[in-house]
Amino acid sequence: MDRLEPVTLQIDRDAILAYAEITGDFNPVHVDEAFAAGTAMGGIIAHGTLSLNLIWQSLAASFGTDALNGTALDIRFARPVRIGDTVQAGGQHSETEARLYDVWVRNQDGVNVIEGTARLKTLG
Amino acid sequence: MDRLEPVTLQIDRDAILAYAEITGDFNPVHVDEAFAAGTAMGGIIAHGTLSLNLIWQSLAASFGTDALNGTALDIRFARPVRIGDTVQAGGQHSETEARLYDVWVRNQDGVNVIEGTARLKTLG
Repeated sequence: MDRLEPVTLQIDRDAILAYAEITGDFNPVHVDEAFAAGTAMGGIIAHGTLSLNLIWQSLAASFGTDALNGTALDIRFARPVRIGDTVQAGGQHSETEARLYDVWVRNQDGVNVIEGTARLKTLG
Repeated sequence: MDRLEPVTLQIDRDAILAYAEITGDFNPVHVDEAFAAGTAMGGIIAHGTLSLNLIWQSLAASFGTDALNGTALDIRFARPVRIGDTVQAGGQHSETEARLYDVWVRNQDGVNVIEGTARLKTLG
């Protein structure tokens, strides 16, 4: 497979609050607008692992769940995701290795918010 | 800092279902017991990025949120997390590089479910 199946999600405040509830991650940069405005982020940002999940969904949609056991991700949280952003995960086969894929999550402006590689243990 | 702050979460079915709602990740291995029992996983597993979030919380608790912009994670989803598991994220300074930390998420048996490294862009 050359291109991974794209997976899209719109980020809203309710999703961020619910994500905080599930994970216990109530870092004020995610839930406190006044606090977040005073940080380097300049406002509320979504949890990075919320967007990262989309890469996993993209891999699962492309290869099936059973193929993903033992998968390694080497990724960088490049830019913040904000309320109202629509992010899309995707990927393409790396030319350097059979089981290696370049992966990313991009926002509605086409800017990478997460970027890196996924190395599958098997190809299913 | 030599050891990262540990962060613990108990995984239950409600959390997995809520995580599916937020992310749109309704892969049946997460939500359909009968289907999941027939896969290589042998039963329902939690979303990997749910547990991975704990590493992020551990880093945030240790260095502060502003220090984490641009952080790179190189991790492997080593083993599944199941309903009823209690997972704990932690980490320790790698001896090879100032901004590099070995990180992990372990279950109640002390077994790594996620393992790898986090490379901070800065130290805050």
